[in-house]
Amino acid sequence: MEYKIKRLDMYTGYPLIAVLNKKDADLMDLYSLDRVRIKKGRKQINATLDTTNSDKFVKQGEVGMFSEGFQELGVKKGSKVHIYLEKKPKSVELIKKKLKGARLNYDEIHTIINDISRGLLNEIEITYFVAGSYINKLSFNETVALTKAMINTGEVIKFNKKIVVDKHCIGGVAGNRTTPIVVAILAAAGLTIPKTSSRSITSAAGTADTVEVFCKVDFPIKKLKQIVNKTNGCLAWGGALNLAPSDDRIIRVEHPLSMDPTGQLIASILSKKRSVSATHVLIDIPVGRGAKIEKMKDAIRLKKKFIEVSRKIGLKIKVFITQGSQPIGNGIGPMLEAREILYILKNSSYDNYHLMLKRKCLHIAGDILELTKKVKKCEGYHYAKGILESGAAYEKFKEIIKEQNGKLPNPDKMKLARYNVSFKANKSGRIAHIDNNMMNKIARIAGAPNDKEAGVYLYKHKKDIVKKGDKIFTLYSDNKKRLEYAKKEFSWEEGIEIKKNHHNHKAKMKIKKKK
Amino acid sequence: MEYKIKRLDMYTGYPLIAVLNKKDADLMDLYSLDRVRIKKGRKQINATLDTTNSDKFVKQGEVGMFSEGFQELGVKKGSKVHIYLEKKPKSVELIKKKLKGARLNYDEIHTIINDISRGLLNEIEITYFVAGSYINKLSFNETVALTKAMINTGEVIKFNKKIVVDKHCIGGVAGNRTTPIVVAILAAAGLTIPKTSSRSITSAAGTADTVEVFCKVDFPIKKLKQIVNKTNGCLAWGGALNLAPSDDRIIRVEHPLSMDPTGQLIASILSKKRSVSATHVLIDIPVGRGAKIEKMKDAIRLKKKFIEVSRKIGLKIKVFITQGSQPIGNGIGPMLEAREILYILKNSSYDNYHLMLKRKCLHIAGDILELTKKVKKCEGYHYAKGILESGAAYEKFKEIIKEQNGKLPNPDKMKLARYNVSFKANKSGRIAHIDNNMMNKIARIAGAPNDKEAGVYLYKHKKDIVKKGDKIFTLYSDNKKRLEYAKKEFSWEEGIEIKKNHHNHKAKMKIKKKK
Repeated sequence: MEYKIKRLDMYTGYPLIAVLNKKDADLMDLYSLDRVRIKKGRKQINATLDTTNSDKFVKQGEVGMFSEGFQELGVKKGSKVHIYLEKKPKSVELIKKKLKGARLNYDEIHTIINDISRGLLNEIEITYFVAGSYINKLSFNETVALTKAMINTGEVIKFNKKIVVDKHCIGGVAGNRTTPIVVAILAAAGLTIPKTSSRSITSAAGTADTVEVFCKVDFPIKKLKQIVNKTNGCLAWGGALNLAPSDDRIIRVEHPLSMDPTGQLIASILSKKRSVSATHVLIDIPVGRGAKIEKMKDAIRLKKKFIEVSRKIGLKIKVFITQGSQPIGNGIGPMLEAREILYILKNSSYDNYHLMLKRKCLHIAGDILELTKKVKKCEGYHYAKGILESGAAYEKFKEIIKEQNGKLPNPDKMKLARYNVSFKANKSGRIAHIDNNMMNKIARIAGAPNDKEAGVYLYKHKKDIVKKGDKIFTLYSDNKKRLEYAKKEFSWEEGIEIKKNHHNHKAKMKIKKKK
Repeated sequence: MEYKIKRLDMYTGYPLIAVLNKKDADLMDLYSLDRVRIKKGRKQINATLDTTNSDKFVKQGEVGMFSEGFQELGVKKGSKVHIYLEKKPKSVELIKKKLKGARLNYDEIHTIINDISRGLLNEIEITYFVAGSYINKLSFNETVALTKAMINTGEVIKFNKKIVVDKHCIGGVAGNRTTPIVVAILAAAGLTIPKTSSRSITSAAGTADTVEVFCKVDFPIKKLKQIVNKTNGCLAWGGALNLAPSDDRIIRVEHPLSMDPTGQLIASILSKKRSVSATHVLIDIPVGRGAKIEKMKDAIRLKKKFIEVSRKIGLKIKVFITQGSQPIGNGIGPMLEAREILYILKNSSYDNYHLMLKRKCLHIAGDILELTKKVKKCEGYHYAKGILESGAAYEKFKEIIKEQNGKLPNPDKMKLARYNVSFKANKSGRIAHIDNNMMNKIARIAGAPNDKEAGVYLYKHKKDIVKKGDKIFTLYSDNKKRLEYAKKEFSWEEGIEIKKNHHNHKAKMKIKKKK
């Protein structure tokens, strides 16, 4: 039957949804949650059906479509389309097979990923796939298959270069915003680094969230290639590029429970590197109490998997296991991190902690320089330091941000969030632990990463000696209620451990006794 | 802030969704997928937020709400409400704990079930809970906790009777529509049987779907009690009663993958029995090739679990393991099953196969009569037979259907589906297997249970001798496309196995040789 298309201006995400008047649905013997094919000339899309009893909402003879479907079908309001019943895709059975503990082969995984990419699976079905991959794990072969399937179902951006570099941190560490600095150094060194980043999954900010403080991060592929050809680098959001369209839909259902199964993690990362034609890649795995990976043993296992899967897909890789037992940098949250990046790139006065973030960036940039044989072994760090401290990296960064339609602010004048609350040490002693999970959690509750200005600013770090009443950190938010919730969520026991300084303690005891 | 409520007439299911104009959301610093509380005077509901850029859809100062939320809040169009940000419920963390393999205690399970009941969890979150319960299984204690939590978060219907009986079949067998007949017999015998049934999860029809062919099945509790007090029984859909509101939301996310984890299964069934104040319950577990449970060993394990959990919640139970390796009855699908029920209740002429369904009903009714000590051991079957064959059960059934606003048709004049296709034996021989899964599957693809008339009618059964070209079954649908899909889906290899009759085969060989 032919229907007039009506645009419903709402974001619903995937799968695409089409709404028919119940009377029409009955006539066609179609039901809510049925899958339908909508055809306009040669173009067609698949959607999930919903029905309405309200003639005001969608009247007989009309089909309501939400914004995404409208765009995908590329039709005008009022266009006529045909609607057909579609069968449930085969991937639904394959997902159940995985839940039952079976191993899937390449063809099976490709079928699932392809259906997700095409928007044929609903969120419930994708969630079962993630849950199956999380509890039953993905085998080595499944992980390789998933990686390849993600590459093969998305766009690949080609550069006319023999060497293209990339880096990735598996996250979990609060702050730790190395990417923008590393990109600036390597692009300044003449390497091609078309960096695409994701938005945050479980942390207070992803690189894309942070860079967005300065400039646009979503570009079509053509524009991205222009930026890279002009500046050697870019700092884009991968999700806008259709590189691995299934990945963002998978990440969307991982969000509510902050899930991140290992096989998905490796496939998600490596497929995106391959999709920007990267030849040399550095992976940063932070390890330690409160990081995403707490035990060195697990980090080494993950490192091995990265190396093995990379070999199978033809990537030269270096996996870097780093300290992840406390936040790196002072700022946690998009804006606070962005400000810190500028301080480092501008070689502004900074405290010891900034030095730690700066050093980590130099190690990463240095290792990539060595991996590509651009510089000799053991010389990468100092080569990178020269580029950063000469101001060349800052100039390169400014150039990239400008190409991405942004402008760098003066970090001293950046506007902070409307509301804040500071936390003061409840006893004197030595800071024994600062928990990444807790810091990310309260920053997220405070509004990060959607609220750019929300987050945490740390004044102190591990091993620092503090006195009772010293300001340890400030929590920022643009929303009073969120600030209140985040404040309630924080506990010293789980968040920041201050161990009594024995020396001081004994001294006090003596004084008391003397009295 | 205060908003004017706008009704969006669309069914979206739970969780409740509220839509704000993006500009308002930005002002309040609220984001898509945030949880909000909507307050009108003393009444308040929780909802998940969505945002729109279209002023036509929801303009500034308005909040769009879908039908369910509108009803729950009990407001009029144009009413003013307040909106507040809400925290993520604690159950989200507990679900993740279950995914990681932990055991949950009663309080934790109660928290999850209570949040599901109150519509606080979205479908992705509920899906993770089901997946965790499916792959990591629910322990005995968790199953008891889940059962109790489901009882305690829903309504309980009380009857002023010492004995209240109930029955349940765990399903998977196509056809097998014993419930309406058993209810008619037991109510005629003077037992109280307030039967609530679910709609189908994985089969072509649930009891509620089939009874709906004759009459209404959704009633408020007050009306249901009236029906039972008047007739001793009822045949209602449980979902309309709010007995275990979490259960239907769980079943909704089990649908797409036809999931049904054991612990959920036991809790779902026993909680509903307890919620109608049942004291004596019979559970029918069909076992065999192509049934939901294929191995006797698994059936016995499930039987034990049912008995143990029942003891913990104070239910007298009999678990009945039955033959489930082929469809029971000829009709598969709501209308075809309903017609067969009438034939049996009216003691119409029937072939041997109907006798099998009739016998099963008499065994079930008889066992319940014995369990309640209404009749002595070994006398139940014949007692039930007397009631059925005397016509008393039919009269009782007519009475119940009448109280449920329906009327019994003449089974010979019931209208069949518009389209059908018959399948003929592709060789001569003996029917060795008829697969329940395949029969349910093609009936579902043909439109069952939503399309009442869709389904399968079997002319032959296991052990029958057939000749090539004999009609084996007819597939019915009101939709040509669906019929075509269902037809394509059927394969003799997976669906119906015909083994060559050795005797005939040898005879033919001899004839050939003679020539």
